Amino acid sequence: MTHTLEALNRMGSADFAAAVGDTFELAPWVAEGAAARRPFATVTALHEAMMGMVRSAPRERQIEFLRGHPDLAGKAARAGSITDESRHEQASVGLDSLSEPEFARFHRLNDAYKAKFGIPFIVCVRRHTRDSILTQFERRLGNDAATEFAAALQEIFFITRLRMTAKVTGEGMPAVNGRLSTHVLDTHAGRPAAGVAIELYEFAGGKAHYIQSAITNADGRTDQPLIGGRPLPIGRYELRFDVGNHFRSRGIDSGDPPFLDIVPLRFSIAEPEGHYHVPLLCTPWSYSTYRGS
Amino acid sequence: MTHTLEALNRMGSADFAAAVGDTFELAPWVAEGAAARRPFATVTALHEAMMGMVRSAPRERQIEFLRGHPDLAGKAARAGSITDESRHEQASVGLDSLSEPEFARFHRLNDAYKAKFGIPFIVCVRRHTRDSILTQFERRLGNDAATEFAAALQEIFFITRLRMTAKVTGEGMPAVNGRLSTHVLDTHAGRPAAGVAIELYEFAGGKAHYIQSAITNADGRTDQPLIGGRPLPIGRYELRFDVGNHFRSRGIDSGDPPFLDIVPLRFSIAEPEGHYHVPLLCTPWSYSTYRGS
Amino acid sequence: MTHTLEALNRMGSADFAAAVGDTFELAPWVAEGAAARRPFATVTALHEAMMGMVRSAPRERQIEFLRGHPDLAGKAARAGSITDESRHEQASVGLDSLSEPEFARFHRLNDAYKAKFGIPFIVCVRRHTRDSILTQFERRLGNDAATEFAAALQEIFFITRLRMTAKVTGEGMPAVNGRLSTHVLDTHAGRPAAGVAIELYEFAGGKAHYIQSAITNADGRTDQPLIGGRPLPIGRYELRFDVGNHFRSRGIDSGDPPFLDIVPLRFSIAEPEGHYHVPLLCTPWSYSTYRGS
Amino acid sequence: MTHTLEALNRMGSADFAAAVGDTFELAPWVAEGAAARRPFATVTALHEAMMGMVRSAPRERQIEFLRGHPDLAGKAARAGSITDESRHEQASVGLDSLSEPEFARFHRLNDAYKAKFGIPFIVCVRRHTRDSILTQFERRLGNDAATEFAAALQEIFFITRLRMTAKVTGEGMPAVNGRLSTHVLDTHAGRPAAGVAIELYEFAGGKAHYIQSAITNADGRTDQPLIGGRPLPIGRYELRFDVGNHFRSRGIDSGDPPFLDIVPLRFSIAEPEGHYHVPLLCTPWSYSTYRGS
Repeated sequence: MTHTLEALNRMGSADFAAAVGDTFELAPWVAEGAAARRPFATVTALHEAMMGMVRSAPRERQIEFLRGHPDLAGKAARAGSITDESRHEQASVGLDSLSEPEFARFHRLNDAYKAKFGIPFIVCVRRHTRDSILTQFERRLGNDAATEFAAALQEIFFITRLRMTAKVTGEGMPAVNGRLSTHVLDTHAGRPAAGVAIELYEFAGGKAHYIQSAITNADGRTDQPLIGGRPLPIGRYELRFDVGNHFRSRGIDSGDPPFLDIVPLRFSIAEPEGHYHVPLLCTPWSYSTYRGS
Repeated sequence: MTHTLEALNRMGSADFAAAVGDTFELAPWVAEGAAARRPFATVTALHEAMMGMVRSAPRERQIEFLRGHPDLAGKAARAGSITDESRHEQASVGLDSLSEPEFARFHRLNDAYKAKFGIPFIVCVRRHTRDSILTQFERRLGNDAATEFAAALQEIFFITRLRMTAKVTGEGMPAVNGRLSTHVLDTHAGRPAAGVAIELYEFAGGKAHYIQSAITNADGRTDQPLIGGRPLPIGRYELRFDVGNHFRSRGIDSGDPPFLDIVPLRFSIAEPEGHYHVPLLCTPWSYSTYRGS
Repeated sequence: MTHTLEALNRMGSADFAAAVGDTFELAPWVAEGAAARRPFATVTALHEAMMGMVRSAPRERQIEFLRGHPDLAGKAARAGSITDESRHEQASVGLDSLSEPEFARFHRLNDAYKAKFGIPFIVCVRRHTRDSILTQFERRLGNDAATEFAAALQEIFFITRLRMTAKVTGEGMPAVNGRLSTHVLDTHAGRPAAGVAIELYEFAGGKAHYIQSAITNADGRTDQPLIGGRPLPIGRYELRFDVGNHFRSRGIDSGDPPFLDIVPLRFSIAEPEGHYHVPLLCTPWSYSTYRGS
Repeated sequence: MTHTLEALNRMGSADFAAAVGDTFELAPWVAEGAAARRPFATVTALHEAMMGMVRSAPRERQIEFLRGHPDLAGKAARAGSITDESRHEQASVGLDSLSEPEFARFHRLNDAYKAKFGIPFIVCVRRHTRDSILTQFERRLGNDAATEFAAALQEIFFITRLRMTAKVTGEGMPAVNGRLSTHVLDTHAGRPAAGVAIELYEFAGGKAHYIQSAITNADGRTDQPLIGGRPLPIGRYELRFDVGNHFRSRGIDSGDPPFLDIVPLRFSIAEPEGHYHVPLLCTPWSYSTYRGS
């Protein structure tokens, strides 16, 4: 259920805490503290105030709060004994359907991490591909405790900011969504290439996994962003454009098989809230791409 | 053993036939006929004269000649009862190591082809990848008899031209070799990209199969052509350039993971005797390629 | 003074003729005829109905109508004895300020044209640069009479369509405006190039004439189209981008003088109602452009 | 008259001094000193030894040596009372045919320079365009004395190295020549563009001055480098490619006038001994260039 910022600003403290309390996992004191600071001019300010409660809490309370988060792909998740919020987030990146070896790998990483830092590994899974989560996990395991504690709080910030935008509407929404778009320009004909079939793949474990397809419209673009309305998961991707069919349908002979048929553009996303425009400029004999805007 | 054209022009007819006779599979009459037309000014003219013998032979003799060729990936090849020339040619494209299903597919195609045309399927395997041979096989199975008979003679021309260049040296050698080359230009630095690791893959059955690796030299090129000194097998290829490492070694930050890491260029070769120059112009944020010269 | 289509549909015939009559030069019968066909669902339909009057008029009346148009850069224009509409149109392309040799050239062309066709040369000047008008003039002088008569009516169509859109507002406005835009992408930095100074030139008589300047905004675009809100004059243009200053301000050394300093992009416009997007993708060592969308 | 290094190594000291003495303007002691250090393994070593004489000479002798050089575009040059070497060098960049205002400007710069530094302004004119000489002149006038003294010796090094390569042949010639080349690739057709007319211009005083023309051969290159066999004069250039005619001759319609007609590539040369490869990749609707190798 969503609330308007205006309603949240006016409701009783208990109702307020009930409305936004579960944004911060098992930490009702966060919402209680923020209730006293109302009214908020923007949703961003509301979220900042709640994060301020966490940042200014005593160390013990912070640690208790971090410990309240479930293991990534952990036994609790398997057993169903974690919050709904956590369950949906972990499922979004496939952590609910790991193979036994993958589950074992997460298990080992979780154990090593908790042994070193005394808290579970926390990451905003919706900002990452599965490959990127594993990379982060192994990299952060090498941090010192102070760096890692700050990193965990930063992830809490990302997680709760996303939860907040799903729960509250109003002025000053935080920018949490990125956008991946493309554009196919036929520089042989000097116009957008319409009707070109595009496939998007994500790399995981060195292999390309199909995500989705699209067809370019009359302007050479896709009607919808390839990824949009959510953070772009950090990771490696490949766009594949069927330019062979496009030029064949224009009656152009570029050899048999044609010099260019399926054109792959391979690139990485590192900014989940950014705009990645990855166009293809193409003739039957040449192509180019760039990160555009 | 190779011979000079000069020596071939001067030797006795029997020696001449012994020297070049096996260029045309089990057809000593080709060399015998050509012997009478000596001397030849060029190796190309010698080959043309031998092809002329085939082209002007009576239909029955042509058919007998074509029937003398072994099945592609056939039982004779498996049993070792084909000529050395044929065996080496078939092995060069992996036809000597097919899986059982692949062997069965060739077997079915061979049967259908012989049932329709009364001759074995003949193709100059050294001008094709395995995928391309299968494509040709299925396509040519749809030809009418006259078209296919001409196609078979054209392939004989390609096969024997290659055998001739391996056996005879001298003036006017026919052009049988193609060349695949690349060049990596770092347009961020404005100079050739040295030390870039490159891998070449061939597509077969929809999958990329590793062929070889190279490293760019100070001029951004490879010391040797990626493929050279032989016909370029018709087929689909992918070059993969490790530009992520290149820019990392120059201290450039283009995100984590970097926007461009492994850049694949996918293209096809349709002219075995042609020059394919497939360069990469690259910054950390953009790249382009084209069929160059 | 402008009118709404709705008001035009409802007013008396005399008022209607007074309101839109001068759209067709000295030909009140056009508006009178169209008045009887009201109401019109779109402004385009109104214009089509008026053109229909011209097209279906007897030949003598058509010729009289065409003869009612002034010479381009003619004596009447100099003497001020032409309609305001014509005067403004001719001034827009500089025909009111020709040098004596240019005036003499137009005079000679006018005389030759009238001697051959018996009507003045009619062209929609707002769709052309001065160079393009001269090119058209000399080319059309070579037409046969039937072709040229059709060409003159087509130009009447363009002229009156523009006049109509200036006089009438409402549903279904004809598309008469084009757009010239650009975009500067710094593919060295992987982001739009902000603050780049751009100059637009038009070629006339082999020389570049300055038209206007702009500075790219944070998205690498100009706040306004380089040309917009009017037909794009057919002709040759050059955009000049000060990328030398851009890269210098980023602290990049590409030699002294820098390899790229002022980058000119030279192109032509042939479709006055089209969209010409002419972007610059640039590093200190490379650049590219294309007709985009 | 040229000499071989071998002959110079063996001849008497007086003959040696006579042979290479005038390499260093009016300073016979340079050759005399170098004579004693023979034999030299390379022409570069010979030149280095002569420069060594200058560098290790007492300050007074160095100054006297520098003072022995004529003013650039000075009265002595006009009156013909300078050495032949200096006269040819100054003529090569047009300093012998300045207009009166240009002559006056050089005169003022010469006076200011000599008043400040006590020596004439010395620059290796064959490594510069006229614009670049003026830029250097004004920039170096702002140097302090020590910096400028070093700059003058560096120019002596460039001047005498060029004179040496004109006078002596043998092992280890110093690299004094640069090369400007181009290549036109038609990425619409996927092959080199043959028969394209190219013009090379140099910018001087803000205007483009024609230097020379060339036509691309079957490989899309020019038979000779655009500039070669000499140092590339530092300065600003423009290459103009007539791609409009090229695509018209291929029957391609890209509008009237064609979207691309004359394509200008504007770039600067900063390394006289470097290789500048400035190719054009072109379709009727797009083009790109880069500093290649």
